[in-house]
Amino acid sequence: MTRHSAVPPPVTAVLDASSAWLPARLGRVEEILREQGGGHGEALAADAATTLEAGGKRLRPMLVLLCAGEKGDEGAVRGAAAIELIHMATLVHDDVLDAAPLRRGRPTVAATSGRDRATATGDLLFSRAFALLAASRDGRSIELLSAASVALARGELAQRQDAYDIAVGEERYLERCRLKTAALFECACRLGRDEEALGAFGASIGLAFQLLDDVLDVSGPPERTGKARGTDLLDGTVTLPLILAAERDPAIREIELRSLDPAGAERLCDRIEAAGALREVRSRALEMVAEGKRRLAAAGLDPETRKLFDLVADGVVQRYS
Amino acid sequence: MTRHSAVPPPVTAVLDASSAWLPARLGRVEEILREQGGGHGEALAADAATTLEAGGKRLRPMLVLLCAGEKGDEGAVRGAAAIELIHMATLVHDDVLDAAPLRRGRPTVAATSGRDRATATGDLLFSRAFALLAASRDGRSIELLSAASVALARGELAQRQDAYDIAVGEERYLERCRLKTAALFECACRLGRDEEALGAFGASIGLAFQLLDDVLDVSGPPERTGKARGTDLLDGTVTLPLILAAERDPAIREIELRSLDPAGAERLCDRIEAAGALREVRSRALEMVAEGKRRLAAAGLDPETRKLFDLVADGVVQRYS
Repeated sequence: MTRHSAVPPPVTAVLDASSAWLPARLGRVEEILREQGGGHGEALAADAATTLEAGGKRLRPMLVLLCAGEKGDEGAVRGAAAIELIHMATLVHDDVLDAAPLRRGRPTVAATSGRDRATATGDLLFSRAFALLAASRDGRSIELLSAASVALARGELAQRQDAYDIAVGEERYLERCRLKTAALFECACRLGRDEEALGAFGASIGLAFQLLDDVLDVSGPPERTGKARGTDLLDGTVTLPLILAAERDPAIREIELRSLDPAGAERLCDRIEAAGALREVRSRALEMVAEGKRRLAAAGLDPETRKLFDLVADGVVQRYS
Repeated sequence: MTRHSAVPPPVTAVLDASSAWLPARLGRVEEILREQGGGHGEALAADAATTLEAGGKRLRPMLVLLCAGEKGDEGAVRGAAAIELIHMATLVHDDVLDAAPLRRGRPTVAATSGRDRATATGDLLFSRAFALLAASRDGRSIELLSAASVALARGELAQRQDAYDIAVGEERYLERCRLKTAALFECACRLGRDEEALGAFGASIGLAFQLLDDVLDVSGPPERTGKARGTDLLDGTVTLPLILAAERDPAIREIELRSLDPAGAERLCDRIEAAGALREVRSRALEMVAEGKRRLAAAGLDPETRKLFDLVADGVVQRYS
């Protein structure tokens, strides 16, 4: 349950299909993100700047902008930048906790500058997100973003609390995914346009996104995910593939995760796959994406826009299927 | 430059001198803080609750309430709780970075629950602060608090960047103190009433507070501070007493902080004191407090209220003189 070691590439497809307003606004988001990293009059924020420039697919900002639509204003652009700052902050803190050497093929802040500076860098990114929205007195956006941040932290705490507990149930796992991943996707959509149907779409594809990321951790291959199979298992993170496999293959329940070594983790991955758990999780994720698309119907989008949303949803699934 | 391992006890004196409204409102702040720790429908936030209940003197909340005055509304109470949440979040993260076993005589979250949970707990407290203010759509308060949070993180980054560098100058040290400590004191006052004179008062006593805390690290005694003398020196934190002593005693400039052991740190503390640096820093801090009081004149406070502010300012100095 690492947060998307693997980022889906829906952005390109959506940008290709959209007219010029969307790329232009994503460009504005990048500008704002660059300003946040720098602009302190000193080299202090170098780590923050490096993190922001390292990129990623800017999936959450794109959801904000898409939901705001072509008539969206500068507030949507700021919201898009703010949610990416929060997302980046959590990645930097995650990498501190996991002592991760690489993210997106680049050294993490934790690796280059140490845990101390990485913790402070995460705090800085976090604070900048709220400062950005506060400057425009956008009360509802701050409410949405702070609620999502609370969810993120609670999800992180839940994950740490459940660590190594193979008996953790499916409900608990799903609640963790909602807190840790889906809440920020939902927030992204509502930052763009505060409507229940859009929020539900975001939550559904966010949940699917996390499930599929957890499938990738088991299925690999490492050349594609950039990390060894079973990395989550070695960290003690119990995800849905393992939970379902343990229900089907009682011997798995006897495995002591704490004493797992990398070879053991690979064997456990094979076993999870053999139990048919990956297929099952993939199929549930696809159902969540379909549900997300259905929920969109209530949002009254024009067909052109609807197509862009479908592309985003499909992009989440695409590389996993 | 640990953030006040030692908290001054001005609260009691102020409460004794004030009429009933101030204690009543501080009681409301405690209620809100308790709600933030719990209320998640699960035991997840136990660490957060423990941290909040562990207390401290609530100096920042008191500044908010004092500045808001007797006619202050519920917004001031929420601001007071929010600033304490931010303060607590930074303490929890500090303890992760310093791997500190104790804070205020109790085990730290980092010590009892591990660095991972402590990092997430800090993030949770941080998020709750903004969520609390966002709920009431208090745009200016969020602006003040997020700016102070940015300052805090920048101060933390600056401290890590300057670590072990004995040549770091006085200006740089003071800037770090402004970011790391004074900004939150200033913010506390402005959350109560957004006036320059009040903000200047907060900034001055915040700066003095940090200087005196740094004196205590050198002077001890440990029975009073709850930590060994020279703890900052061992962490590589170069503070004003060391900077001034190194100007007066060139041999100090040759000391390699990285290779300092606890006995060496104690000897260095003696040497800093022998150079007269502690006396000098204390006297500067007293001058800052006096300046803070002078700045208050422009705030047009009635004599009764002015007396309470003076008590807070004196409380910052009191136990150090």
